[in-house]
Amino acid sequence: MKLKTLVLSPQSRLDEVCSEACRARINDYFEPVWNETGRDYTQEELSERMAEAEVIISSWGSPSLTDEMLQKAVKLRAIGHAAGTVKNLVPKQIFAQGVKVYSAAPRIALSVGEYCLAALLTSLRYLPEFDSAMREGKWKIAGLKGRELTGSTVGIISASSTARAFIKLLAPFQVDVLIYDPYLSEEAAARLNAKRATLEEVMSCPIISVHAPKLPATERMLTRELLALIPDGAVFINSSRGPVVDAQAFMEELQSGRFFAALDVFDKEPLAVDHPIRTLPNVLLSPHIAGASVQGHLALMEEVVEDIIRGLREEKTMYEVNEKMWEVMA
Amino acid sequence: MKLKTLVLSPQSRLDEVCSEACRARINDYFEPVWNETGRDYTQEELSERMAEAEVIISSWGSPSLTDEMLQKAVKLRAIGHAAGTVKNLVPKQIFAQGVKVYSAAPRIALSVGEYCLAALLTSLRYLPEFDSAMREGKWKIAGLKGRELTGSTVGIISASSTARAFIKLLAPFQVDVLIYDPYLSEEAAARLNAKRATLEEVMSCPIISVHAPKLPATERMLTRELLALIPDGAVFINSSRGPVVDAQAFMEELQSGRFFAALDVFDKEPLAVDHPIRTLPNVLLSPHIAGASVQGHLALMEEVVEDIIRGLREEKTMYEVNEKMWEVMA
Repeated sequence: MKLKTLVLSPQSRLDEVCSEACRARINDYFEPVWNETGRDYTQEELSERMAEAEVIISSWGSPSLTDEMLQKAVKLRAIGHAAGTVKNLVPKQIFAQGVKVYSAAPRIALSVGEYCLAALLTSLRYLPEFDSAMREGKWKIAGLKGRELTGSTVGIISASSTARAFIKLLAPFQVDVLIYDPYLSEEAAARLNAKRATLEEVMSCPIISVHAPKLPATERMLTRELLALIPDGAVFINSSRGPVVDAQAFMEELQSGRFFAALDVFDKEPLAVDHPIRTLPNVLLSPHIAGASVQGHLALMEEVVEDIIRGLREEKTMYEVNEKMWEVMA
Repeated sequence: MKLKTLVLSPQSRLDEVCSEACRARINDYFEPVWNETGRDYTQEELSERMAEAEVIISSWGSPSLTDEMLQKAVKLRAIGHAAGTVKNLVPKQIFAQGVKVYSAAPRIALSVGEYCLAALLTSLRYLPEFDSAMREGKWKIAGLKGRELTGSTVGIISASSTARAFIKLLAPFQVDVLIYDPYLSEEAAARLNAKRATLEEVMSCPIISVHAPKLPATERMLTRELLALIPDGAVFINSSRGPVVDAQAFMEELQSGRFFAALDVFDKEPLAVDHPIRTLPNVLLSPHIAGASVQGHLALMEEVVEDIIRGLREEKTMYEVNEKMWEVMA
C-alpha cells in the first residue's frame, strides 16, 4: 500500500525545487496528490485534505499547519519541507503526535557555504574595486594589492550548518579556524578542525563570518564594543541574520571605512531603497541570496523525499527535526 | 666563507618582496651587497659587479644578464629571481656555464590559484550584478539565481603551476576536472585528480580556465571555432595571457552575452582606455593582478633564498629552472 502524499507546492514552485527524477520518484514510491490549483493552497484547502494525508511535502509558500489541522491529521506519519526552517510551518504539538518532521535546511547551507567563500575571496582580492576601476577606463590602482586567504585566521560565530559548510570549503587554504559557539564542545570543534574561542577572540580575527541564527539570545549580540574589536583591513561576512548586529554601531564602523564587509542580510529586509549602506565603497551587497542557487534549490525536494523514505524504512535519516531542534530553530 | 651576494633590488622593491626575516637571513647566511642607489641598477652598474658575484638575487625591475656579463661572472654559482619568469632575465648560456637558476614563479602561482577560485565563485553567484543592483536601490532580481560549483565540471587549458594551484583549491567541491595539455601523461593527470581531454572537450565544459603560457605554439590557440564551443551560461576565466585567444572572435562571443568571462589578461596591455570590453555586463575585469598579493609578494625573496641555500647544500630544491624549462618558459 503506497502512502497518500499531499504535495503542497504548485507547478511553478515544483519547477524550482523538484527535479524530473524527483517527480518520478514521488509517483513511484507514494500515492501523490499533486496541487493542481496553479497556486499555493489556502489554509482552508489544506485543512480539508488533512484527514486523508499520510505524508505531506511542502516548500516555500505552503500554508502553515495549525493545531486544529493536526487534530484532523489522524493518518499523518511524516512531513518533509523542501525549504529551510520549519519553525512557522509546524506547531510544537506535531512532535507529541509522533509525526516525523524533515527539513532540507542543511542542503541550503551548502549554497551558503559557497557564498561565504565567494564573498570572502572576492573581498580579499578587491575584485569589485578592480572591476569598477576597469569600467572607468583605468588600469592598475596604485597601492591596491589583494590579500591571500591561505594561512590566515578565520573567526566563525556559531557552529551552524552554514558555518560547517563554509569550514569544509576552507580545507585547502590551511587557515586557523576559531569558533564561538556556547553549545560546541572542544571535541566537536576539533572534529571541524577548529578551536573554540571567545566572542572577543573571534571578533579580533582578520576574517570574521557570522552564522548565528536569529533568536532572542542572539539579537544584537554583536554589540558596539565587540564591533570595535574588528581589526583594520578585516573582512566581515554576514550571511545569517541582520539583527544579530547592533545596526547603528555597525553602520558607524562601516562608514569609517576601516574594514570591508560582505553583507547578504540586513537589519530590515528588503533593505530601504535609500539606505546609506548602499553607497559605501567598502561593502559587497546582495539581497539575501546566500542560500539561493539553481542546483541547491532543485535538490531540495529530492533530499527530503529520500529522507522521508529512509525514515519510513527505519534507516538513519539526515534531515529529521526533533522537538529540541525545533525549539532553538530560527 | 660566506658567499658574496648581489641583491639587485633597491629598498622600495625589497619592501614588497622581502620580509624582515628574509633580510636577516640574507645578512646571516651570505655576504650581501645591498643596492643602496635607491633605484634599479643599470646594466653597466651590474656588469661592473659581475666579477665578484657568487650569488645574485633579483626581482622585478632588475637588469637582464647578457652573455657579455656572464663572461665576467667567473665566480657566479647561483641566481635567484624573486619574481616570475626568468626568460628575459638570463640568457641560455647561463646553464652551460653551470650557474644554478631559481625562480619564485610557482609561489606566484598560489595567488593566481586563489584569484581563479575567487573569480569563478563570484561569477557563478552573480555577486557583481547583485552588488550593482543593490547600489541602484534594488532588492531581489527576478530570474537571477546563482549557480553552485559543487559537482560541476571544470575544463583546464594547460597543466601549468597556476592550474595546479587552482585545482588544489577545488578539492572540497567534488568537481570533475578535465585538462588539455599535450605534455601531460594520463598518470600525471591522475595525480592531479583530473582526466586528460581534448581542447574541444575542455572548451565544451560549463567552467573553463585558461592557464597556457604565451608561446608561439599557444598564440591564438583558442580559435573562433573553439570559442564557439563554449556552452551558453558558462564561466570562462583567463588568468594567463590574452594572446592565447583569438581576440576578435572572443569579443564577438562576449558581445552576444551568452556566457560570462572573468578576465585578468588582455590581448594588449594595458587595456585601451576606450576598449569596448570595458562596458560589457557579462565580464569581471581586473588589470593583470591575479598573481599579485601582499602575502604572495612578501614571500618571494624568502622562497628563492631558501632554495638557493638548499641548492648550495645539495639538498632537494623546489624552484630550480633548468635549460629545458627555460626553453618552454613564457
